[in-house]
Amino acid sequence: MHKEQRERTVALLKRHGINRALFANPHTVTWLTGFAPPIQTGPNFFQASSPLIWYEGGLFILVVVDTQATLAAPLDQNADGKVIIYMGHTVQEPLSGVPNLQITLRELMKRSRVSGKVGVEMNHCSLMVSNAIEQALPTVEFVPLDGWLEPLRMVKTDEELVKLRQNFALTEIGHTRARQIVKPSLREIDVWSEIHAVIEREAGCRVPLGNDCIVGYRQQNVEGWPKGYELRAKDSLIVDLSTILHGYWSDSCATYFATEPTATQKKLHQTVSDALDLGRSMIRPGMKANQIDMRTRQFIEQAGYNVYRHHTGHGVGVSGHEEPRIVSYNETELQQGMVIMLEPGIYLPGQTGVRLEDAYLVTVDGAEQLTHHDKSLP
Amino acid sequence: MHKEQRERTVALLKRHGINRALFANPHTVTWLTGFAPPIQTGPNFFQASSPLIWYEGGLFILVVVDTQATLAAPLDQNADGKVIIYMGHTVQEPLSGVPNLQITLRELMKRSRVSGKVGVEMNHCSLMVSNAIEQALPTVEFVPLDGWLEPLRMVKTDEELVKLRQNFALTEIGHTRARQIVKPSLREIDVWSEIHAVIEREAGCRVPLGNDCIVGYRQQNVEGWPKGYELRAKDSLIVDLSTILHGYWSDSCATYFATEPTATQKKLHQTVSDALDLGRSMIRPGMKANQIDMRTRQFIEQAGYNVYRHHTGHGVGVSGHEEPRIVSYNETELQQGMVIMLEPGIYLPGQTGVRLEDAYLVTVDGAEQLTHHDKSLP
Repeated sequence: MHKEQRERTVALLKRHGINRALFANPHTVTWLTGFAPPIQTGPNFFQASSPLIWYEGGLFILVVVDTQATLAAPLDQNADGKVIIYMGHTVQEPLSGVPNLQITLRELMKRSRVSGKVGVEMNHCSLMVSNAIEQALPTVEFVPLDGWLEPLRMVKTDEELVKLRQNFALTEIGHTRARQIVKPSLREIDVWSEIHAVIEREAGCRVPLGNDCIVGYRQQNVEGWPKGYELRAKDSLIVDLSTILHGYWSDSCATYFATEPTATQKKLHQTVSDALDLGRSMIRPGMKANQIDMRTRQFIEQAGYNVYRHHTGHGVGVSGHEEPRIVSYNETELQQGMVIMLEPGIYLPGQTGVRLEDAYLVTVDGAEQLTHHDKSLP
Repeated sequence: MHKEQRERTVALLKRHGINRALFANPHTVTWLTGFAPPIQTGPNFFQASSPLIWYEGGLFILVVVDTQATLAAPLDQNADGKVIIYMGHTVQEPLSGVPNLQITLRELMKRSRVSGKVGVEMNHCSLMVSNAIEQALPTVEFVPLDGWLEPLRMVKTDEELVKLRQNFALTEIGHTRARQIVKPSLREIDVWSEIHAVIEREAGCRVPLGNDCIVGYRQQNVEGWPKGYELRAKDSLIVDLSTILHGYWSDSCATYFATEPTATQKKLHQTVSDALDLGRSMIRPGMKANQIDMRTRQFIEQAGYNVYRHHTGHGVGVSGHEEPRIVSYNETELQQGMVIMLEPGIYLPGQTGVRLEDAYLVTVDGAEQLTHHDKSLP
C-alpha cells in the first residue's frame, strides 16, 4: 500500500543526506501511507496532534491516536511501514493525550543518534511535538522539509488512479442528479443536499463534498458554498463538486439553468466549452503548464469577455489543489501519469456565470478524460 | 461579539502576569472571537496556519488567510478586537502563504518588548509560527497556555446559548425525520444522508454533522459512522447527532427500531430512559460531575447489565466534548450556566443496543432541557 510513494521519498531524502525525518503535513501522511482520517467534523477531539510519521532506517512509522488504530492498520502489512498507537483519552483518568504522545515519540527515538540532521515538516509540526523530539535528541539540527514531497506527488501511481477514478465516478452521479432537479424555486442548498445524499448513498459511506453551488445573480458568483439563494427563471447555477473518498480528491464542474438558457447564457456556454476543448487539446507530455493557462485565457479574452481571475486548472490527489498548477508562472512540463483539472469560466457579476471543468490523465501522447458528467446545454 | 469571553481571558492572564499571548487552538479562536471557519473538507489549502490570535495590550488580533476575511470581519466591530489578513495565494505568483504569514506576524510584533513572557498554545502552534515570533522577539520566554481556557468555557454566555439552542433545534429536525423513515432494508447511510439533508435544508446552509448511526448487530455497536449495514427486522439503530452551526456543537441521541421492538429492546429502552431521568434529576449547582456519573452507572449495573464504557456525559460548546466531563475522576461542581449532555446506554455486542441522550442547561436550582427530540418507544 503506497509503497512506491515511500520509495520515491526515500530516494529524495538520500540524495540530500537525510536519514531521519518527521512528516506532519496531513497530505503527506495520506500520500505516504494511504491512511486518511475522517475530516467532516474537524480533528479528533482526543488526538494530541494530527497523525505523524517518524522515518528512520527505511521504516515509516505512523503515530496515531488509539481511536484511529483500525483505519491506520493496513500500513502494518508492509515491510517498510509500522503503526504505533498512543492513548488519546480514557474515562478513568484525566485527559493525557499530549503526554502520552510525547512519551511515545521519545520512546521511538531512544535508539536514534542524538545529533545530526532530522528533516521536519515545520509548517505542521507543533511546538509540543518538536519539544518531544528535542528532549529525545537534544542536539539534532532540524532541516525544513515543507513542500519537498509535492513534486513527487504529481505523477500518480496505479493505486492512486483507482482511487481517483472512484471519486470521479461519484462526482458524475452528483452531476446527473443536479441536472435532473435544478428548477425555479429550489434553493442552492436544496440542490446541494440532494447531490450530497445521492453521492453518499452510492458510496455506501460518508463522503466529504466540496466546492461550489452558486446562482448567477450573486454578486460574487465565481465560488461559494450553497446558501438560501433561490433559483428563479433564467438563473444559472454553477455546480462544482469534489468528493474525498479514501483520502483522494476529485473535482468537476458543470453549469445548469433553471429554465431554458438565454441567448447570452448559450453564448457563454459555447465559449467556455470551446475554451475547455482548446485546453484539452494541448495536454500531452512536454507541454508547459503555463502555455495551457495562457492560451485558454487568450481564447476567452479574444471572444470579448473578461478573463476569469482564478487558475485555469490544477492537479488533484491527496489535496484538491496541487501541482502541477495551471497558472501563468508555472513552467512545469506535463508528464505521463499526472492528473490535471481544467476549468475555464466566464462570469458576469450579479447576473450569470458559466464554468465547465473536466479531469484528464496525461497519457503517452495526449489526455484521457477521467470525468464523464454531462456538461451540455439542456 | 464574544466580548465576555475575552474579558474572562484577560482577567486570567493578568492573574498570571501575562500581557502577551498567541492563541492557536481552533476551539480557543472560535470561543474568543465567534469566528468559525468551514471544516467539512478539511483546512483551507492556502492557509499557512489555522487562524491565530495575537493578544497584547487588551487587544485580540485575529490573523487569517485572505479567503476568510469576510467571515472574520465581525470581530473588527469590537473595540477589543481586530482582524489582520495575509495573502494565501494568487495565480500570478508562486505560493507564498507561509512567508506572508511570517512577515505579518513579525510586523505585528515589531513594537512589542523583545523579552519577557509570551503565553503560547504550544499544542497547536507550528514551528513555522514560533520561529516567526522568535525572530521578532528573540529573547522572550514561552509560557504554555494549553488547556488554560477550557475551564473558562464551561459557563455559557447568553450569546452562546442562542447558538446552542439553534443547534439543538436542528438535531430535533434530524431526529424527527429519522423516526419517520427507519424501516427494514434501509442502510445506515440511507438514514444518515436523509437526516443530513433535512438539517441543511432547514438551516439554509451547509452544516457539519456528527456522530453515530449504527445498527445493533454490528459487533462494535457503541459508536461509528454510517456504512452500508442494512436494517433488518428487529434491528435497533442508534442515531447520535451533533450539528455544528456558527462554530457551536450540539449533541443528542435516540434509538429507533426497524420493526416493533422486541421484549429485550423494550426492557433496555426503559432502563436507559430511567437512567437518563435519574441523571437529570441530579443536575443542579453544586452537584459534582462524578456523582452523576457514579449514580447513573450504578443504576445500569443494578438493573443487571454491563455498564457502558464511555462517559456518562460531557459539556458542549465550541467543541463536542468539553468540560465538565461527567466521568468518575471529575469532582468539578456544576454551576448555573453550564450546558451538559447525559447519554447512558446499554449495548449487547453484535445484537442490539440502546442509547438516549439529552442536553441540559444548569439553572439556579435544577436543569432546563435543551433537546426536545422524541425518544419514546414507537
